[in-house]
Amino acid sequence: MNQRTGIRTPVDLLIHNAKVLTLNDSDDIFDPGVVAIRNDEIAWVGPEGSWPNQFEPRERLNMAGGLIMPGLINGHTHAAMTCFRGLADDLPLSVWLNEHIFPAEKKIDGELVYKGTQLACAEMILGGITTFCDMYLFEDQVARAADEARMRALVGEVLYDFPSPNYGPPEQGLAFTRDLIQTWQGNPLISVAVEPHAVYTCSPDLLYQCRDIAEDFRVPMIIHLSESQDEVRQVKERYGLSPVFHLEQLGLLSPQLIADHCVVLTEAEMDVLAERGVRVVHNNESNMKLANGVAPVAKLLERGVAVGLGTDGCASNNNLDMLAEMDSVAKLHKVYRMDPTIMKAKTVVQLATRGGARVLGLEELVGSLEPGKKADLIGLDLDRPHLTPLYNIYSHVVYAASAADVTLNIINGRIVMRDGELLTLDVEKVMAEVRAIAKKIKS
Amino acid sequence: MNQRTGIRTPVDLLIHNAKVLTLNDSDDIFDPGVVAIRNDEIAWVGPEGSWPNQFEPRERLNMAGGLIMPGLINGHTHAAMTCFRGLADDLPLSVWLNEHIFPAEKKIDGELVYKGTQLACAEMILGGITTFCDMYLFEDQVARAADEARMRALVGEVLYDFPSPNYGPPEQGLAFTRDLIQTWQGNPLISVAVEPHAVYTCSPDLLYQCRDIAEDFRVPMIIHLSESQDEVRQVKERYGLSPVFHLEQLGLLSPQLIADHCVVLTEAEMDVLAERGVRVVHNNESNMKLANGVAPVAKLLERGVAVGLGTDGCASNNNLDMLAEMDSVAKLHKVYRMDPTIMKAKTVVQLATRGGARVLGLEELVGSLEPGKKADLIGLDLDRPHLTPLYNIYSHVVYAASAADVTLNIINGRIVMRDGELLTLDVEKVMAEVRAIAKKIKS
Repeated sequence: MNQRTGIRTPVDLLIHNAKVLTLNDSDDIFDPGVVAIRNDEIAWVGPEGSWPNQFEPRERLNMAGGLIMPGLINGHTHAAMTCFRGLADDLPLSVWLNEHIFPAEKKIDGELVYKGTQLACAEMILGGITTFCDMYLFEDQVARAADEARMRALVGEVLYDFPSPNYGPPEQGLAFTRDLIQTWQGNPLISVAVEPHAVYTCSPDLLYQCRDIAEDFRVPMIIHLSESQDEVRQVKERYGLSPVFHLEQLGLLSPQLIADHCVVLTEAEMDVLAERGVRVVHNNESNMKLANGVAPVAKLLERGVAVGLGTDGCASNNNLDMLAEMDSVAKLHKVYRMDPTIMKAKTVVQLATRGGARVLGLEELVGSLEPGKKADLIGLDLDRPHLTPLYNIYSHVVYAASAADVTLNIINGRIVMRDGELLTLDVEKVMAEVRAIAKKIKS
Repeated sequence: MNQRTGIRTPVDLLIHNAKVLTLNDSDDIFDPGVVAIRNDEIAWVGPEGSWPNQFEPRERLNMAGGLIMPGLINGHTHAAMTCFRGLADDLPLSVWLNEHIFPAEKKIDGELVYKGTQLACAEMILGGITTFCDMYLFEDQVARAADEARMRALVGEVLYDFPSPNYGPPEQGLAFTRDLIQTWQGNPLISVAVEPHAVYTCSPDLLYQCRDIAEDFRVPMIIHLSESQDEVRQVKERYGLSPVFHLEQLGLLSPQLIADHCVVLTEAEMDVLAERGVRVVHNNESNMKLANGVAPVAKLLERGVAVGLGTDGCASNNNLDMLAEMDSVAKLHKVYRMDPTIMKAKTVVQLATRGGARVLGLEELVGSLEPGKKADLIGLDLDRPHLTPLYNIYSHVVYAASAADVTLNIINGRIVMRDGELLTLDVEKVMAEVRAIAKKIKS
């Protein structure tokens, strides 16, 4: 009730009897707590029993002691590669790419990308992801699939010096990207970035043209950077500089740049990334599985670099499971640095939520549960043997929970999954369609 | 029908329409395949349509294209530490042990161990584990809980030079162990080992007495060995030798010995472990989280050492999830050795099943699906987005599946879990009891 007018204020959904992990600036945890949603926004967050009594919720959801937290942000993926999940593993990088992934990718078309992305959206929604950032071919189909699934996504067509099965010659890739940006301008869920593949596949001229589009439209530029020793060696041979210093010399390191991977970095390169305000997405499990190395994430964080987490594509992980990713991030860096106190559970939860939002330029919108932010949030059932007992919520999320514990997913105020049921996708149909695609790939 | 007599042979359960991963010597996969169970044993395994038509199954189970494979073997745990799951994380080892785990363990009694182990059994059964190997206090209660849950277990009371809250002075620990062995002799599920804690906590004299009991009863001796740099340093200071060479000098390295962890090893130590036939349990996630290091498992395997996998206790992991463990084993060793071809998915599945069985001395009984072996097997539902499409079963098990995909668990011929329902444990009661214990620990 508005205290002056006596008029009750409707809210659409009141989630109560929850442990609410806000990830706000003071890391408030309300237990029991309440989140109220109006339209696409969070209207109120706070302790149970103290919510403004003028609220008149249209629907109430009792979490029965479960966890509510911000949706997970998958900072780097190639969603449609679900079609190649487990196609080839445990191989040398060159064999894996040249004999399996590249030939399979020759068969790619818009339909494969659309259906593969639908499957990825199903998996991501079920596993508590609310936002993903994608780089692939036929990215118009990725945008379409994400929009239909009601997922938040930052997408971008991969650009390189050679022809693409989608747009043909590179200059048409730039036109395709401009079109894609304009098509989705103003959409509440989908935004578009300019995405040159990497410095070893993109000439300086192409990179400059990408930068120009990114500046024209004020959108991020996203690139794979320093992912492997092999990339560094190749780039040094061609340009006499490492990938990072090559971009620095070109004047392309800036806060507009999102760099994926950043595995092979010297101290000087970390310094320059920090100075230029470059944002970084860490893909721990992909880097492990492809034996690319361990990204110096703890050192980047010490320098104040914005870092998010990503699963990478399903050909190199092989799932889109951010909860598994968080567990391995926390554990790998400890053993790599031989220090059990680094990458604490709370730090890792921050990276997977508001850290990712900051990297993708979405921090004003999502990443924490605060009034005025978009209602992107997930619920986990804690009443399970492997989550019993409970001493510390952050620790449970990182070290004990799994994707299957996610029972609720709300994106932009809309429930997209509840108790394992996907509400924006026909999952049986999508699985059948991707199985048919796989059958063709196998033959 | 017996072809000579015309008499039909009853089998208790016929599991059909499955992808059957046998893990037998020729790594047969039957797709679709059938497993027939009679009493506690596997009666037949093979392709659908060719099963002997004299079988008259009392019950049929249609897996609808799901996976059937040998049950997972958790080679090293402290089951009752479920009570301390997430109590303290991300701390230096000395602070973690001295300020959190040891004080909490002072409150341990038989009831805590019994209930904590019940919770562990619930979690392990749900996650596809059929056998576990345990070291803790009040191990009579672990045996009781496992037997009641109908799990296969190799258990042993932890022994060291100082008094125990269970048995008092060390000599009574030896008597307790003898009694425990005799109590469970002949039990179809439970067997008992002699379990000195470690060389830094057990005098040579105590180790010799342990060895004598193990030889008397022909049971394994199990010890934590070379888990951390700190252990190696301590043992070198005290005995002038590393933990491995200290045991070698004492004449205690033998095929009877199961060594847990083996993280810090020189090439010479690996050689001597291999020569003596010592069996090793690798606890990858625990070693990562406690920042103890990376065990040289690939090198041990190259030397022919028998290796199994374990989760360790819930204070240092923080779950009992062998599927997560398999994923991290495959990935960590690749990045540690910078070689994507080592610890292939198939190798890792072998370690988690027949590898573990070999280490625990149970290879004649379990670890693969073959006629005459005990019916310890699990089923996974593959009809899920994160397991679609399917190119390679081993790859899916290691890199994409999670504990929640396990829908069937059969131990010693008995269904103990089906579709998430535990049939040998009252899981709600167990969770409530452990929550009450945790409340006391917190206060």
